[in-house]
This record gives sequence, C-alpha cells and structure tokens, in this order.
Amino acid sequence: MISKNKVKFIISLQNKKVRDEERLFIIEGDKLVKEFLAAKIPIKTLIAKPEFLSNLPVDLTRFVNEIEDVSYEELKHISTLMTPHNALAVVPIPEYEMDTSEVFNQLCVALDFIQDPGNLGTLIRAAAWFGIKNIVCSVDCVDVYNPKVIQASMGAILHVNVYYSDLKKLFILANEKQIPVFGTMLEGESIYHHKLDNKGIILLGNESKGISEELLPFITEKIMIPKFNKAEQGIDSLNVGMAASVVFSEFLRKSGSFPD
Amino acid sequence: MISKNKVKFIISLQNKKVRDEERLFIIEGDKLVKEFLAAKIPIKTLIAKPEFLSNLPVDLTRFVNEIEDVSYEELKHISTLMTPHNALAVVPIPEYEMDTSEVFNQLCVALDFIQDPGNLGTLIRAAAWFGIKNIVCSVDCVDVYNPKVIQASMGAILHVNVYYSDLKKLFILANEKQIPVFGTMLEGESIYHHKLDNKGIILLGNESKGISEELLPFITEKIMIPKFNKAEQGIDSLNVGMAASVVFSEFLRKSGSFPD
Repeated sequence: MISKNKVKFIISLQNKKVRDEERLFIIEGDKLVKEFLAAKIPIKTLIAKPEFLSNLPVDLTRFVNEIEDVSYEELKHISTLMTPHNALAVVPIPEYEMDTSEVFNQLCVALDFIQDPGNLGTLIRAAAWFGIKNIVCSVDCVDVYNPKVIQASMGAILHVNVYYSDLKKLFILANEKQIPVFGTMLEGESIYHHKLDNKGIILLGNESKGISEELLPFITEKIMIPKFNKAEQGIDSLNVGMAASVVFSEFLRKSGSFPD
Repeated sequence: MISKNKVKFIISLQNKKVRDEERLFIIEGDKLVKEFLAAKIPIKTLIAKPEFLSNLPVDLTRFVNEIEDVSYEELKHISTLMTPHNALAVVPIPEYEMDTSEVFNQLCVALDFIQDPGNLGTLIRAAAWFGIKNIVCSVDCVDVYNPKVIQASMGAILHVNVYYSDLKKLFILANEKQIPVFGTMLEGESIYHHKLDNKGIILLGNESKGISEELLPFITEKIMIPKFNKAEQGIDSLNVGMAASVVFSEFLRKSGSFPD
C-alpha cells in the first residue's frame, strides 16, 4: 500500500510551483507510461494496478527507481483524470538547454502566450508528426508539464524539445542571423502562394489575441491560411492545433521533404 | 423567474432521445446565441441574464418565441457547462433532407462512427473553414445536436449541413455514378502525390478503429497524410480534426479554389 505522504506528494505535482521546485512531473495512462518505459526514460515512481505490473516485461522496468502497486481506489485518488487508467508515473523533468544555432538550422515553432493546455499538447503532437523537433514557448505559455498538456500530447513530448524563452530576445538574434520569422496572422499572405522555407521560425499567437504587439516588428514574413469563403460570417478561425497542422503540412510539402 | 418545469424540460434536452422526440436542441454561450440570432434562426426559448438581454438589439429578438430572464444561479443549474456564459437558447432542429445529387456535385465529407463530440464539432468547424457544405455521418456517429458538439463547432454548424445516413447505401450510389470515394487510411497514397478532385467524398474513419470493414470495398482512392519520420515510433496519428484540416487544405489547394 502506498503511503499517505507519497500520495500527497504526487498530487502536489499537479501544481506548477511544486513541479518547478521538485523538477518532476506526472504522466498518466497505460499507453503513455509504456511509451516512456520503452524510450528508456528514467522514472522515479511507477504507480500501477497489479494487472498492469504483472503484464509488464521486466526489461522495461530497468529504468524505474521504485514501483508502487495500488488499488483502483488509490489510483483514482492520485489521478488527475475522471476515469483513471491502470498506471501513472512520476518522471524527472528533462534538463536540456536550447542551442539556438541548432534551432535556427531547421524549421522550428515559436508559441506566443498559448494558454490552453489541450492546445499546447495538440501543437506538440502536430510538430512531432511533421518532424519539427523544436518548440520555443514564450515564458507566459501554459506549462508543458501540466498533466493536461502531457495527456493531449499523447507521447509526442518524447520526440519534440519544448523550451521556454524570451521570444523577443530570440527574434532579435534570428533577425541578426537573417533567419526568417513567419508570423501567422489575418493580414498575412496565403500560405498557398507565399514562398515558404525549410528553415526559420513559425510564430503562432495566443488563441484569442493573436501575436503580441511587441513581437510584430521582428516578423519578416506574414502568412495566413485563407478562409475559403470570405463572405461567410461567423467562421472565426480554425483552432490553433488545426491551423498549425495545415501550416506545417504546407511548409513541409513546399520544401519537398515528405517521404513517399 | 423561470418555472421549474421549464428548467426540467430544458435539462432533459441533454438527452438524445428527448431531442429526437421534441426536435429541439440547446445552444449555449453569448457568442453562439448572438450568431444564431443574427442568422435569423427561429429560437423557441432564449434564456439569459438581464445584462445580456439589455444589450441585445431588439431587431435580433424578432425570431425569438419566448424570452426568460434568469439569475446566474438559475443559468448555472440549466447549463451543461461548468462555468456558464450569460445566455442559452432552445432551438428547433432544422429539418432538411439530403439531396444526393447536390452532395455528389461538390466535395463532401463522410464520417464513419465518429464517437467523440469534440471531434465532430471540430470537423464541422474545419469543413466550414474550407467551404465544404455537406457532412454525411454514419448512423452510429455521435449526435450533432449533443451540446458538446455544438460547443466545439463554434457556430460552424450554421454553415454546414450535417446528415445521418446509411453510408453503405450512399457509397453504392456514389460508385454507380462514378463519384470518387477517397478513403483516408494508413495504407493510402500520400495526399501530396495523389491526384485529388474538386468533387467526391472524403471518408474519415473512427478515432481508433479507422474505416469499417464493410465500407472498404466502396473506396475508389486510398489516401493518407505521410508521417514525416517513418522510423519514429510512438507518434500514432494526428487527431481526426487535425488530419481532416490537412486533408481538406490539400484538396482545396490542388483544385485551385482558394481565394488570394
């Protein structure tokens, strides 16, 4: 039986401040936990129902520091989900530093004040699908280790580096090094007509406010997804995950980088 | 003050069986209610806080049968949302019949057993953005008048016709009339290479099971979005809303139908 203190500690990791101090986060769900295990990510604590543990190849537990076997009720209490799965794990936050020359050397994504955890998770998923390795978030974006972000990213977090940085400083450097900054905005040119590059930064703005005023001067190319029927009122926008998928698709297609 | 019976009745509309019998559904949120009013959709009951009603141009209430002015607590009780907005309305389900020759004459979408209300809402939103007017759902898809679908569609429901029909029968007819049926599936050809048409049916399958076995024989073209890095494990798929957005974008781009 898992101790009350440990339960309390794990629940406290739902709070960003605690995550930042402890450098730990929670992953949840059989599939996600198995993906982390298979990727040989070191795991501090694996908390799971006996059924899950008994079916787990021992080879996968080599990188697990401690295992707690719990009942459904215990798991439900610890879980952030309404209906918990069979497993949950506490994982150290990876400590990696952004290497701007590597980031600038390929297509990357900058996110300005993305607030919704589901949106950030979906954006990471889209980036992973389209082979984009780096996402730079403004410091006021939702925390990538928020359990809802991890849930929505569906394991894609294992394939994409997510950094938090002062975007203004990043863009000053990009401008200096003549790395294009593609701002997605209503007054941009159609992505279907605009020349897109296989290098540069795709900047996506906040869900309702778009790109912050202070970042606008650094944009070197303004792009947008045209709405099919301009006359039609009431279709405000695609959500940011859908818009990003379309933009990434068009960048990759134009660069001819797609596999057959 | 709104009567207890009326509250009970409105809440009962969260149930599909009641919606089907009463031919009524609920829309919620200031923006959505205003869009329905502006579109001159007849509304059976408008339920709103006094602030909402006092700011509503009288012209917009011409198509409203009855107005109930409620407190925050009353609205919270009726609402399907955790945090209710200021307005909610009961709207008659539009009664329209599918005209297959009209549907076949342009690009349309067929959905096979889409279960998640958020996904259906997002798909409607994507269709509206890309000017696709008709969606045909298999009879086992989630109900389009489910409050969560309406919420996720963000008003796009006003611009897209959503039908429920036996897809097998529809596809038999499509095959007879030589209308292409584009099945989106893992073993398809890349959308970036495949010839796409400005007419035909784009078939999207269930979130986890894909397209049903019994519909496979009717597919005339198999297409898919290539994953950028085939070697990368663990990136299962884009969600259906993101995948649909990318597919719709590529269809429209290839047909040259985009506005500048």
